Amino acid sequence: MMKNAVIIVAGGTGSRMGNFIPKQFLLIKNKPVLMHAIEKFVKFDNTLDIILALPRNQIQTWKKLCAEYEFQYKHTTVIGGITRFHSVKNALEKISNEHKIIAVHDGVRPLVKIETIKKCFELATEKGSAIPVIQINESLRRIQGSTNEIINRDGIYIVQTPQVFISDIIINSYKQAYIPEFTDDASVVEKSGYSINYTEGHRENIKITFPADINFVEKFI
Amino acid sequence: MMKNAVIIVAGGTGSRMGNFIPKQFLLIKNKPVLMHAIEKFVKFDNTLDIILALPRNQIQTWKKLCAEYEFQYKHTTVIGGITRFHSVKNALEKISNEHKIIAVHDGVRPLVKIETIKKCFELATEKGSAIPVIQINESLRRIQGSTNEIINRDGIYIVQTPQVFISDIIINSYKQAYIPEFTDDASVVEKSGYSINYTEGHRENIKITFPADINFVEKFI
Repeated sequence: MMKNAVIIVAGGTGSRMGNFIPKQFLLIKNKPVLMHAIEKFVKFDNTLDIILALPRNQIQTWKKLCAEYEFQYKHTTVIGGITRFHSVKNALEKISNEHKIIAVHDGVRPLVKIETIKKCFELATEKGSAIPVIQINESLRRIQGSTNEIINRDGIYIVQTPQVFISDIIINSYKQAYIPEFTDDASVVEKSGYSINYTEGHRENIKITFPADINFVEKFI
Repeated sequence: MMKNAVIIVAGGTGSRMGNFIPKQFLLIKNKPVLMHAIEKFVKFDNTLDIILALPRNQIQTWKKLCAEYEFQYKHTTVIGGITRFHSVKNALEKISNEHKIIAVHDGVRPLVKIETIKKCFELATEKGSAIPVIQINESLRRIQGSTNEIINRDGIYIVQTPQVFISDIIINSYKQAYIPEFTDDASVVEKSGYSINYTEGHRENIKITFPADINFVEKFI
């Protein structure tokens, strides 16, 4: 029987949040961010196989949190790698021949809409790949040390997740050697020669990174 | 007596919103977006001179809205130009020798925080210029027709408003001839040889552009 899967990647250590709690474990409306994110996929399709990639030293904490918050959705936990690429690669080892469509989602994007997940699965089923993007309508600058460069914003989009693929495509693509340019799954898949299809994301589907992001996300949960 | 001013630029025609109401006149919590934006500056400093640049064909509507919503904050309205550059240039004609610091703010950014305005005024007073920026922590792509290019996101920031300057600096800078690369005031000022100083903006200070942005902004007003 064919089924689908979602890989949830949660590799953050909390360093940029200025505290020692990894951002995926911070509480929003009294529940860890990561649980909110996983629940969106369960709500989309409760037959999805869920594979969670977590840093080795966070797995015990996660198990305790699951018990404490009575988080009952079945999922497989794998050990995260040194980069997002390596985490996804580890998670893909849990994918079998019976999986048809594979989504990869950031564990720190709890605001993803069911509608966006649905659109990405539909487009990937039809065309092999789908990622949500949002247009930037503001000025952009590159500020690095004393460098200060204005970036032409024409046609620039922010890439979000879930990034969704037919399983053969993502599995083949992750056989490549890692390069630092692999900042997301689409860049890996594209480097293998597959084309990427776009669907419209939504602005509030942010990747929690900075302390103020928690207050932001609370408005929408 | 020295005083400060803010130029509010509201040039939108509503075309990207898919309707005929300019986005600055759309209602949030039963009040036009533009009134929310102006009020932020009054709350910051109720002695600021307020100069509003509006397209010629919207000035009557604005006057009616001011009467209808009993909007009582004193402001000078000038006719907007063909681009943002030209609107700011028109507004700068209302600046006199007695103005020390000039802020320029997008009329469709009603969520700006008083704290951000304050930080920009302080930094501009000290160093001549200040703009709020926010870091991008997500993958970026340029998608134009069949072009599809991954943008190196290292050090890339989104530029917001208010953009704040010592009056001589902005007045001198706007004497230049317009070029299409002038997407904001900082780019104009920088082209004149002045340096730009940065302060941290905040994520929800978005520029209302798309229909879904209204729902977004309502969460924060």
